[in-house]
Amino acid sequence: MSALPEVPLTIEGASVLHQMMRIRWSVWRGLSAAERDTIVAEAASALAGLESGGRKASALYSLLGHKGDVMFVHFRDNFEELHQAELAVARLRLSDYLDVTSSYLSMVELGLYESTQKTYSALIEQGVEPFSEPWNAAVEETLTRQREAMKVRLWPEIPEAKYICFYPMDRRRGEQKNWYQERMADRARMMHEHGMIGRRYAGEVRQIITGSIGFDDWEWGVDLFAEDPLVFKKLIYEMRFDEVSAVYALFGTFYVGIRTRSEDLPVLLAV
Amino acid sequence: MSALPEVPLTIEGASVLHQMMRIRWSVWRGLSAAERDTIVAEAASALAGLESGGRKASALYSLLGHKGDVMFVHFRDNFEELHQAELAVARLRLSDYLDVTSSYLSMVELGLYESTQKTYSALIEQGVEPFSEPWNAAVEETLTRQREAMKVRLWPEIPEAKYICFYPMDRRRGEQKNWYQERMADRARMMHEHGMIGRRYAGEVRQIITGSIGFDDWEWGVDLFAEDPLVFKKLIYEMRFDEVSAVYALFGTFYVGIRTRSEDLPVLLAV
Amino acid sequence: MSALPEVPLTIEGASVLHQMMRIRWSVWRGLSAAERDTIVAEAASALAGLESGGRKASALYSLLGHKGDVMFVHFRDNFEELHQAELAVARLRLSDYLDVTSSYLSMVELGLYESTQKTYSALIEQGVEPFSEPWNAAVEETLTRQREAMKVRLWPEIPEAKYICFYPMDRRRGEQKNWYQERMADRARMMHEHGMIGRRYAGEVRQIITGSIGFDDWEWGVDLFAEDPLVFKKLIYEMRFDEVSAVYALFGTFYVGIRTRSEDLPVLLAV
Amino acid sequence: MSALPEVPLTIEGASVLHQMMRIRWSVWRGLSAAERDTIVAEAASALAGLESGGRKASALYSLLGHKGDVMFVHFRDNFEELHQAELAVARLRLSDYLDVTSSYLSMVELGLYESTQKTYSALIEQGVEPFSEPWNAAVEETLTRQREAMKVRLWPEIPEAKYICFYPMDRRRGEQKNWYQERMADRARMMHEHGMIGRRYAGEVRQIITGSIGFDDWEWGVDLFAEDPLVFKKLIYEMRFDEVSAVYALFGTFYVGIRTRSEDLPVLLAV
Amino acid sequence: MSALPEVPLTIEGASVLHQMMRIRWSVWRGLSAAERDTIVAEAASALAGLESGGRKASALYSLLGHKGDVMFVHFRDNFEELHQAELAVARLRLSDYLDVTSSYLSMVELGLYESTQKTYSALIEQGVEPFSEPWNAAVEETLTRQREAMKVRLWPEIPEAKYICFYPMDRRRGEQKNWYQERMADRARMMHEHGMIGRRYAGEVRQIITGSIGFDDWEWGVDLFAEDPLVFKKLIYEMRFDEVSAVYALFGTFYVGIRTRSEDLPVLLAV
Repeated sequence: MSALPEVPLTIEGASVLHQMMRIRWSVWRGLSAAERDTIVAEAASALAGLESGGRKASALYSLLGHKGDVMFVHFRDNFEELHQAELAVARLRLSDYLDVTSSYLSMVELGLYESTQKTYSALIEQGVEPFSEPWNAAVEETLTRQREAMKVRLWPEIPEAKYICFYPMDRRRGEQKNWYQERMADRARMMHEHGMIGRRYAGEVRQIITGSIGFDDWEWGVDLFAEDPLVFKKLIYEMRFDEVSAVYALFGTFYVGIRTRSEDLPVLLAV
Repeated sequence: MSALPEVPLTIEGASVLHQMMRIRWSVWRGLSAAERDTIVAEAASALAGLESGGRKASALYSLLGHKGDVMFVHFRDNFEELHQAELAVARLRLSDYLDVTSSYLSMVELGLYESTQKTYSALIEQGVEPFSEPWNAAVEETLTRQREAMKVRLWPEIPEAKYICFYPMDRRRGEQKNWYQERMADRARMMHEHGMIGRRYAGEVRQIITGSIGFDDWEWGVDLFAEDPLVFKKLIYEMRFDEVSAVYALFGTFYVGIRTRSEDLPVLLAV
Repeated sequence: MSALPEVPLTIEGASVLHQMMRIRWSVWRGLSAAERDTIVAEAASALAGLESGGRKASALYSLLGHKGDVMFVHFRDNFEELHQAELAVARLRLSDYLDVTSSYLSMVELGLYESTQKTYSALIEQGVEPFSEPWNAAVEETLTRQREAMKVRLWPEIPEAKYICFYPMDRRRGEQKNWYQERMADRARMMHEHGMIGRRYAGEVRQIITGSIGFDDWEWGVDLFAEDPLVFKKLIYEMRFDEVSAVYALFGTFYVGIRTRSEDLPVLLAV
Repeated sequence: MSALPEVPLTIEGASVLHQMMRIRWSVWRGLSAAERDTIVAEAASALAGLESGGRKASALYSLLGHKGDVMFVHFRDNFEELHQAELAVARLRLSDYLDVTSSYLSMVELGLYESTQKTYSALIEQGVEPFSEPWNAAVEETLTRQREAMKVRLWPEIPEAKYICFYPMDRRRGEQKNWYQERMADRARMMHEHGMIGRRYAGEVRQIITGSIGFDDWEWGVDLFAEDPLVFKKLIYEMRFDEVSAVYALFGTFYVGIRTRSEDLPVLLAV
Repeated sequence: MSALPEVPLTIEGASVLHQMMRIRWSVWRGLSAAERDTIVAEAASALAGLESGGRKASALYSLLGHKGDVMFVHFRDNFEELHQAELAVARLRLSDYLDVTSSYLSMVELGLYESTQKTYSALIEQGVEPFSEPWNAAVEETLTRQREAMKVRLWPEIPEAKYICFYPMDRRRGEQKNWYQERMADRARMMHEHGMIGRRYAGEVRQIITGSIGFDDWEWGVDLFAEDPLVFKKLIYEMRFDEVSAVYALFGTFYVGIRTRSEDLPVLLAV
């Protein structure tokens, strides 16, 4: 039997780019008040447009700490539109006073452990050969149905929450503990337990998972949105004890930011 | 039985930001004495205000070595106030002569291993289902009581000590030794033994633990305050042999600084 | 018996250099429109020449994210020609507005697990001593035949696809899992299974493997070319579960770019 | 029985700061000969003073390679004096032409494995409770006696040797091999064997060990002084095979320098 | 029995410094043609002198990729002469247009596994105590004889080959696989097998091994010289499967360069 039924199906939605930037305060301050006003006005107007893009919107956050002063989060329909967004930001006059310190490229992803198991079991029971034409057709049907059912989650609008927490992560591929060597059934069980914790926080935190295998240096990006940042700590700490996180999760850099709307730009950039 | 009773309860207090900075000496020296005097006066006056904020105060330290020349430590009521503190520093004219080299974002945290064990045991004995409404209510009651009892430690004033030692740390999640896979009872015992060492140093060193899961790249930040820096070495060396540190502690960068008050600024910045 | 029959034969073709660069937007914007036009015209003309080099061509990609704004990929007949290509780019006036952030040096490589096993088995059956003259002659004959048969893959033209995904990788040499300690037969089997996945994606993605042992900091470079970048994610995610990737693959930085032809340069560099 | 008798006693002496710096040659060369002469004269005069400080002296070394062009080593009585030394260097006009690339903060440390074992055994034999007042008094008496006996080694003058080799190191805390989990008796035996190698090199190399737990990012700093740098390689290579180094030593960056006295400064800085 | 007979004897020759540098093309291009000509003439004349130094010579290579544009390799009689070479390069006017990005400090080293085993066995058979005076005298005699016999390899002239490949490496000191814990007899056998591979490449590649324990951040540096760079890949790939490399070798950054003689400088630096 082929090993491939071990790979869970996924469906993808919006293309997402995070851009972390530092403000070059001393050069910025060197400008005249009039120049600064013009530049802020241009940037605020551009941001206002980006904010109101629905499922093709961008949001700006003020980051805490030295990893960056601001972070743009862009949701778009594809990578070409993300590239256009990146160029649009680079062409703002304000960009002369920003240094890009980091970024993250990914796509909204939903992992379908449950549907995968159901679909594969049914097909195998029917004696369908993996990757045969009928197998592929059945899989494609499952994907299409799920994409339709999950449309709102695949193409989300950026939550209105005051705080964001973004971090990339991997599943461990250690010499002894290796996620990609675990059986699908075990992974499905662990992911289910993991999801149950998230569910208890559903009212307080909104989560968007993006996949970045093949796109960036970690396997997934996680965006959390909440009105109170303490909930980020509570949720992630609690999850750290569940099996899939305790044993298999590796974390990258954490970024915490405060939503900064176009009308907040003049205050942020006041000197 | 749910795995969740394995997660210790925590209570949180002040939001804390550490900012490490280098002085751009050669540019600073390029200013006229009059310009430097004005800028120092502005900064000293601002620092005087920040120092006297009680539980919403900031302190400045002169760091030893190349990791930075100075470090600000800000204690505030929430992240938004921290962001305001960060902007206030960035807007000082002195900031044109400072480069931010690092930072750390966290919240004062007290881990309640003992209360957690008591509360959970009692609830389970009473047959209360984890995460049921009565369970959550009982937990919330414990937390509220502890937050009240620990108020002074959760919302501390910055100790007056001459020396500070700051470092971030993680609990190991190795393939064989994994803190988050140890039983709560074992973790509680190890944390207790760890605390007993700290207690013997209580007269010489003041310790503030902040949690940073979800906020920054390590799980905890440790601030030690003492009149004699040798005690940092003695304490941390002794702890390195206790089980929780020997086996499960991973350490980040260490920063050592000397308290620098507003009235010391002119001397520090003399050229 | 010598351990050497454990080394698979490889054949090599084009020399390849990847160059990742950031555009210095603020300096670029500081130029007059006329200066920019002249510089873009020079660069576009040079790029047009490089693009049409057949098996000695170069292509330019617009990268997504902060790792670089553009990436040159040069295919040449040898390292000296690559050096000339590098100098030619450095001498463009446009280069004054580019910072090279990374690079990768490698040669197109085809690993011949199957031929190696056949050739070695036949020779050993005939009682030929490894590395004796007749052994070497027979091996050389195999290599020559394969180089001729694989000529098109060894000296490829750069695919026309819209998207590129480049990343370097290693085979793990862990204390317990060590690719270079596995038997040739096992490695051949794992590589075969790995190749079967790639084959299912043949219509959607074009792959060029380059070897970089002795040339750069990872053992291989992988270039994927596709019209839809989602296929990069699908392919690499699926492969992550096959044995050779799950257990033995270590990945470097991922770069994703959009093909940018000479005629697209004015738009990319518009301010 | 408490686990604490596992911690070896240490005694500490001088506070030590290493500062690695690069010379900004092109800016330096841009000065007029007269300006350079004035700046060199000021620096040479300052260095002459620092060199003659006895146990509170500083020495300058010319480093080989790109990690820095020069390294200051400051020995002082405490961290506050080190901070003053750092500021004194920063205030030299020459500092405008130096970039600090690294540093190391530590205190001269002697580990007392033998005395610790003797003292603890005797106390336990007498039935004294660890950390009781009589226990602490006896320990303090041992420390005081040793501090007096070792005074010259605790507060050393900087050796006159032509070459220096500095590197930081850790004791391994791996998942299987963990220095801090080994029994005191085993550690004492390994340290003794380690010391026996050093003893055979006593005529050729002078060694100063400084402790940096709680002060900097490694646990110890090692300074070796010799007339012939080959002896650094011989000694460290030989030690790499003894058990404590082979199994438990982790090494940081190595710095090699040539003593540069105040009278050598004009030659070093000639353009 | 002392553990020391486990350390292989080594003999050392030339002191070696590698310097990797980037050309600051945009600043260089900003000069007038006349200025560039003068600076190139000075550098070419200096390089011509350095090239003809016999066993105290330097060579320049044009590096491929972003790790540097050029690499100097200096062979000298001792570290002081290397420091002089470094200063001589820093004082060239051309250095104002070069940034040193990396370096490596080492000494030509020959490991004498075979002689060590013979000498030690004979001495132990004769009942000579390790590190006694007669033991040391016998060892010194072996070293002296070998230094004389190996003189040409210890003090080599820089090979004329067109291509260089330089990389640093370590022997693994893992928790389970630890080179420094293996028996001398096993290490000698593995090194012998390793050497047999090199021997088959003797006509195509010249290898110089330098030791850097105590001098730089890796244990050894390897320089390979060849007319065809493909041989670097072939040799290192084949070696990767032998036991000593597969299990115990850890590799640093790889640098590949093309010999650039004084007469090639004007072409390299043409704009």
